[in-house]
Amino acid sequence: MIPRYSRPDMVAIWSPETKFRIWFEIEAHACDAMAEMDVIPRENAEAVWAAKDVEFDVARIDEIEAVTKHDVIAFLTHLAEHVGSDAARFVHQGMTSSDVLDTTYNIQLTRACDILLVDMDELLEALRRRAFEHKMDIRIGRSHGIHAEPTTMGLTFARFYAEMRRNRLRLQRAREEIATGAISGAVGTFANIDPNVESHVCSMMGLKPEPISTQVIPRDRHAMFFATLGVIASSIENIAIEIRHMQRTEVLEAEEFFSKGQKGSSAMPHKRNPVLTENLTGLARLVRMSVIPAMENVALWHERDISHSSVERAIGPDTTVTLDFALHRLTQVIDKLVIYPDTMLENMNKFRGLVMSQRVLLALTQAGVSREDAYTLVQRNAMKVWEQGRDFKTELLGDPEVTAALSPEEIEEKFDLAYHTKHVDTIFTRVFGEC
Amino acid sequence: MIPRYSRPDMVAIWSPETKFRIWFEIEAHACDAMAEMDVIPRENAEAVWAAKDVEFDVARIDEIEAVTKHDVIAFLTHLAEHVGSDAARFVHQGMTSSDVLDTTYNIQLTRACDILLVDMDELLEALRRRAFEHKMDIRIGRSHGIHAEPTTMGLTFARFYAEMRRNRLRLQRAREEIATGAISGAVGTFANIDPNVESHVCSMMGLKPEPISTQVIPRDRHAMFFATLGVIASSIENIAIEIRHMQRTEVLEAEEFFSKGQKGSSAMPHKRNPVLTENLTGLARLVRMSVIPAMENVALWHERDISHSSVERAIGPDTTVTLDFALHRLTQVIDKLVIYPDTMLENMNKFRGLVMSQRVLLALTQAGVSREDAYTLVQRNAMKVWEQGRDFKTELLGDPEVTAALSPEEIEEKFDLAYHTKHVDTIFTRVFGEC
Amino acid sequence: MIPRYSRPDMVAIWSPETKFRIWFEIEAHACDAMAEMDVIPRENAEAVWAAKDVEFDVARIDEIEAVTKHDVIAFLTHLAEHVGSDAARFVHQGMTSSDVLDTTYNIQLTRACDILLVDMDELLEALRRRAFEHKMDIRIGRSHGIHAEPTTMGLTFARFYAEMRRNRLRLQRAREEIATGAISGAVGTFANIDPNVESHVCSMMGLKPEPISTQVIPRDRHAMFFATLGVIASSIENIAIEIRHMQRTEVLEAEEFFSKGQKGSSAMPHKRNPVLTENLTGLARLVRMSVIPAMENVALWHERDISHSSVERAIGPDTTVTLDFALHRLTQVIDKLVIYPDTMLENMNKFRGLVMSQRVLLALTQAGVSREDAYTLVQRNAMKVWEQGRDFKTELLGDPEVTAALSPEEIEEKFDLAYHTKHVDTIFTRVFGEC
Amino acid sequence: MIPRYSRPDMVAIWSPETKFRIWFEIEAHACDAMAEMDVIPRENAEAVWAAKDVEFDVARIDEIEAVTKHDVIAFLTHLAEHVGSDAARFVHQGMTSSDVLDTTYNIQLTRACDILLVDMDELLEALRRRAFEHKMDIRIGRSHGIHAEPTTMGLTFARFYAEMRRNRLRLQRAREEIATGAISGAVGTFANIDPNVESHVCSMMGLKPEPISTQVIPRDRHAMFFATLGVIASSIENIAIEIRHMQRTEVLEAEEFFSKGQKGSSAMPHKRNPVLTENLTGLARLVRMSVIPAMENVALWHERDISHSSVERAIGPDTTVTLDFALHRLTQVIDKLVIYPDTMLENMNKFRGLVMSQRVLLALTQAGVSREDAYTLVQRNAMKVWEQGRDFKTELLGDPEVTAALSPEEIEEKFDLAYHTKHVDTIFTRVFGEC
Repeated sequence: MIPRYSRPDMVAIWSPETKFRIWFEIEAHACDAMAEMDVIPRENAEAVWAAKDVEFDVARIDEIEAVTKHDVIAFLTHLAEHVGSDAARFVHQGMTSSDVLDTTYNIQLTRACDILLVDMDELLEALRRRAFEHKMDIRIGRSHGIHAEPTTMGLTFARFYAEMRRNRLRLQRAREEIATGAISGAVGTFANIDPNVESHVCSMMGLKPEPISTQVIPRDRHAMFFATLGVIASSIENIAIEIRHMQRTEVLEAEEFFSKGQKGSSAMPHKRNPVLTENLTGLARLVRMSVIPAMENVALWHERDISHSSVERAIGPDTTVTLDFALHRLTQVIDKLVIYPDTMLENMNKFRGLVMSQRVLLALTQAGVSREDAYTLVQRNAMKVWEQGRDFKTELLGDPEVTAALSPEEIEEKFDLAYHTKHVDTIFTRVFGEC
Repeated sequence: MIPRYSRPDMVAIWSPETKFRIWFEIEAHACDAMAEMDVIPRENAEAVWAAKDVEFDVARIDEIEAVTKHDVIAFLTHLAEHVGSDAARFVHQGMTSSDVLDTTYNIQLTRACDILLVDMDELLEALRRRAFEHKMDIRIGRSHGIHAEPTTMGLTFARFYAEMRRNRLRLQRAREEIATGAISGAVGTFANIDPNVESHVCSMMGLKPEPISTQVIPRDRHAMFFATLGVIASSIENIAIEIRHMQRTEVLEAEEFFSKGQKGSSAMPHKRNPVLTENLTGLARLVRMSVIPAMENVALWHERDISHSSVERAIGPDTTVTLDFALHRLTQVIDKLVIYPDTMLENMNKFRGLVMSQRVLLALTQAGVSREDAYTLVQRNAMKVWEQGRDFKTELLGDPEVTAALSPEEIEEKFDLAYHTKHVDTIFTRVFGEC
Repeated sequence: MIPRYSRPDMVAIWSPETKFRIWFEIEAHACDAMAEMDVIPRENAEAVWAAKDVEFDVARIDEIEAVTKHDVIAFLTHLAEHVGSDAARFVHQGMTSSDVLDTTYNIQLTRACDILLVDMDELLEALRRRAFEHKMDIRIGRSHGIHAEPTTMGLTFARFYAEMRRNRLRLQRAREEIATGAISGAVGTFANIDPNVESHVCSMMGLKPEPISTQVIPRDRHAMFFATLGVIASSIENIAIEIRHMQRTEVLEAEEFFSKGQKGSSAMPHKRNPVLTENLTGLARLVRMSVIPAMENVALWHERDISHSSVERAIGPDTTVTLDFALHRLTQVIDKLVIYPDTMLENMNKFRGLVMSQRVLLALTQAGVSREDAYTLVQRNAMKVWEQGRDFKTELLGDPEVTAALSPEEIEEKFDLAYHTKHVDTIFTRVFGEC
Repeated sequence: MIPRYSRPDMVAIWSPETKFRIWFEIEAHACDAMAEMDVIPRENAEAVWAAKDVEFDVARIDEIEAVTKHDVIAFLTHLAEHVGSDAARFVHQGMTSSDVLDTTYNIQLTRACDILLVDMDELLEALRRRAFEHKMDIRIGRSHGIHAEPTTMGLTFARFYAEMRRNRLRLQRAREEIATGAISGAVGTFANIDPNVESHVCSMMGLKPEPISTQVIPRDRHAMFFATLGVIASSIENIAIEIRHMQRTEVLEAEEFFSKGQKGSSAMPHKRNPVLTENLTGLARLVRMSVIPAMENVALWHERDISHSSVERAIGPDTTVTLDFALHRLTQVIDKLVIYPDTMLENMNKFRGLVMSQRVLLALTQAGVSREDAYTLVQRNAMKVWEQGRDFKTELLGDPEVTAALSPEEIEEKFDLAYHTKHVDTIFTRVFGEC
């Protein structure tokens, strides 16, 4: 968790204060459930809630842990300092530390997910707005970095929108994966605690009970969660790379917004660098690197070992904080991206009509020329454009074998841009439900 | 794809023969759609189907590709050799190679998924059967590799069942991710081909049309697909590690089936090694290693670059073939696993009652002893068992501070195993819907 | 960087204070070199050294950066506040930010490496000590988790020693990889700065000049560096897994040291869990996860992009801090490991001589029995031990086909443990240079 | 191992024929050593060499393995079919399968390394040649994809040369890592086999004896080996990305060689796509994906488990074959790369002198203008170039505040390209030892 790549709401989820607050709520709800079943006295359960608004003293708990070397015992000891040892006597009864720790971790991940879902909605909104804004702005489509056929800037945003909407669904599913809690005791048999305690606590904390746990909640859930974040990060990289390409000096179809006071470089004051999207490229790598350790965490020994814990202490906060920051940064980049439709047209015309070659090839075939011959005809004229700087349409009009098959009007018509945008509405309707 | 870790049905999906068969079907269905719209003559479309039952000549296609250096053109040239150049003239019209290649890859992945789903069902059935078979067979639960509290072998299988059922749902979702096709032309604008062709081909091939594509189907789908396989592989590792632990010489609660003719070791004939589950541990690593490259494939340049292709040529077959083999092998291991309930009990009794300490601790607390004092009482008797080989129950019965709080009958009752299995039915009902 | 897995000396390397101190030294040494070449006035260079003992104000620099959005400019502005704008005028002349940032990063990694090398030496010393201490303590060797043939605890430590000594060499080489600096200007051409400046700064800061840089130091060096840390982490995991196995309830050949006040579990007071080595297993995953992003950082665009920066801000500190902590923790675990030679013998004898089967097999072959027959003889007696709890030696002595080939004395001799330890000295001499 | 990305010499290393040949040699040399020590009869050792030129029958060995389920036993059985059961009786005596398998694997990796080293030498030679060829061809240096300052195409090749030379050293070290053999018996104690056998076999097979092994050669060696290949692959990606950028339509400073018969696209015949370097980008991901599993292989259980085996069966061949192919392909790309110096100049001049801004800034500072003022002066003229298409030098000459500090001649001189190439010889000497 690097401060400059962190936003406060997500950071707060991972603070010790939040953690202890969740611990308290779990323990207090568990007391309620146990009192309801007459396992512990009702008044003791109620007495615990006296700490409801207490700001737990993190330093004090750390101090106790330094002696006990056990974090939950340290917390319970501190809780007793607030609610009195009599009330505290029944707290945590029949429970094991992991009941609290694992359920808490999932609550934190679930809350983190809720922030990420909002981030995603904001990103989707920005992508949608820019898509409609530039829906029909012609831009050359490129495969292999080479000009192919015309497309529009709106379609570029539309495909990112569609990709991120898939990611939103994946994120929603990832949230379901980890929105479970477990209060099932030392090896998950409920030997010392009734399943009703688990049901009650989970219900109050917005979770589903884990159907079968073993001191720990099974880690395939977390592997799937972090894998999903890794996919989302890869999509962020995808958009970032596109923008970095757009902003290259030779392309310059768009630029990240450049504020007045900002200096691009200490050495070259004219430079406007796509540093935000380059940064997003790096942040994507950071999010993605948690995927494999999360998968390595699945195979715990028997009913549990604690090897996953240090990994999760790191990747829980680091990954969600980084992804939150990245999604937000990307939304800002998209929102303020400066787009240059004129340059888009200039770039497209760099090869003087060559990008229409596929259309011409098709027209020749339909006019009865064999596929092989049509290919040869198109290629030989294309090579003159490529190598000698000629204009493709002019060359075609001057090639008797071409004009034998296509009339000048037909050739002319092949260079009409509307041909390439005729299905933009179809695609927008597929993606946005409207056009 | 290593022969010894491959099964023929999955391998067949990735053969050149299957690939060319799918290519043919895509092209032929596309011709039908184009004929339906009067873009090409109906008779030409019908003539293409003449190759319906042709076994395409892979060597011949390779030969042509050696010249053209383009696989789809090579195939189309060969197709013309079968259906005649007149019929072939309209094949692939307005399409780009990726329309065929990407749609084919997704069909292969989808079919691979169908096999994996069957594998998963067989695994689930085996896990379910063994779970019910050993539902109440007592076994010590272990955290950190150390004896904790009793559980049952049935619960061990039940948790693997629950994990794999989650994986089945994930796999089903992964299938949906990649069950799309695209016939949208050079940059995805449908400039040269009507969207109806895509709809028809997808419908005939069991896919949904990709809402927006750009010569390629977006690779976030494949990243999610391979990430899901990585999670499943991690769950396989989880089960494999458990079995390897069970079979350790000192534990020996279960063994992989050992056929009569099999030699465990050239040097030590008495050895029965858990080589299948060790192998599964390695195979899990192999499946998992495709996750990061699949994520790196997402950020293609502009409308596409071909960097993903070599990666997918490898991980498509390798990962699905390996996972198919691994799921099948695991099913066999589970099915035939030799389980030793007597050894399970012997192991549990190794520490002479110590595993009941949590229960005693709880009973003392409920009898009014403070948590701290109860802990001290339990710990001091536990240490005698641990260090001097005493029996825990005997020690407790002889400790006046313990007997001051608990009667001999109460102490005796704490060692009743039924206490630990009383919720097995509850958990089975949660997991299996019955008990 | 998680506080509980961090040690102060390594953390200090990554503090803003250390960073600004290094920045200052680089700039001041560069001024010296430029003054030496009469590029800037000698007195200005000297004036800069006025800030030699200044404690730079991190908050103030952050404040300036909030405006300039450029960290090096912010620092230089702050430096001017200390040395006066006249002296500051020539600071950083002809340099680019990366000259400072990249050289600093490598200095930090180099210093981190120096700490890691000391950690490694301490670990090696602990391993060596324990190896000699338990050199001849017999322990069963296990393949596949199954008893194989006798070995000694000393050999176990000796192999970890050999592995870690290889890692020490790798670490030394990794240090060389990143012990370079570059002051080569905006694209590495030395257009605005003389190569002598680079030589002087590198020499003063303990680095070699990077032979060819491009604003940045090439990132293959860092990829190799982090890959090496990943290998070391994997070796830590290797040792940790061995100890976790040793401490399993059923094995218990060794235990992590257990301090008096420590509570193993809030629920099960008798438990002594190998939590340190489980933790090390997780920390190994954390270190290893930096390897792939470090490799993804190699392919920067043209003369540089800044995608590597966020990755390195995270993995530089996180990986070195975690590895430092892990090496130190492992040293403590090894140092204090409680080893139980008696249990080692008990475990070995669990299968009543079966582990000698390979020797018997060999003896039979040497006595003229065919390999196949010998195998059958050994296997049939071994199976009686395995399945019926018999004693292997007794069974052999009672098998006429065995005694036809081997005399009772010869059979007896095959069970002599000294046979298995006769080359321990040879191996120790290979590993330690002495025995 | 994908046929289209494979070269025969490397593939041959991994054939069953090669494997069995190595197995034979190990066994036969071991017999020699044992005969030398009078452990087995000299004539039996000699008789084994009768199979020296035998082409082992892979199908027959597979057939035997189908029964024995043990590959080494199957091979030994087949060997006996060639040399007679009498001679065969002493083969493999005292050895364990891993003695053969692990030593063989390392021999294969070592031989693979030898091919890779030759590949690397050829690549270095190509890079060197192109570096000198284009040593002084001016090209704009780019940071963040944005024009920075001039550099030369020679320097681009020189930095790739330097990077690959580092990789050659790393590869040499990686070779040393895995050039060890072990013939140390079931748990590495030499109980049943004398260390002299190991020495002799290793010496004859070009290996060093592993100082301490445990049935297996320790896997930290292999982790380091595959990690090194991952670094090399990342450098290949680095070069590939540079070339892909060069070939973008808008940049076009270089192109992959385009043979006459080759068709770029079935749809767009004018296209020349950088498909080889895109392919290399993907192959780099494939090589890199073996790094993590190789590291996960390090922590084998006790003296060995077999989880590493399936991983190594895949990544051994796949990674070396892919890297061999990639290095060779890259060499061809470099060798034949079509470079366009004229376009390089055109691109540089796209921003009419802006790339000289850093020099002007420096000159202003040296002429006594404060750093802040100089920055403002440069930036305001630069913005006119950027936004209004003016010429930078003209603007500077017309700005009275600039000309107050710098004479027209001084301004003129700042646009001299020789300024930027004056240290190219220095750098070439550093990199190549000559210029």
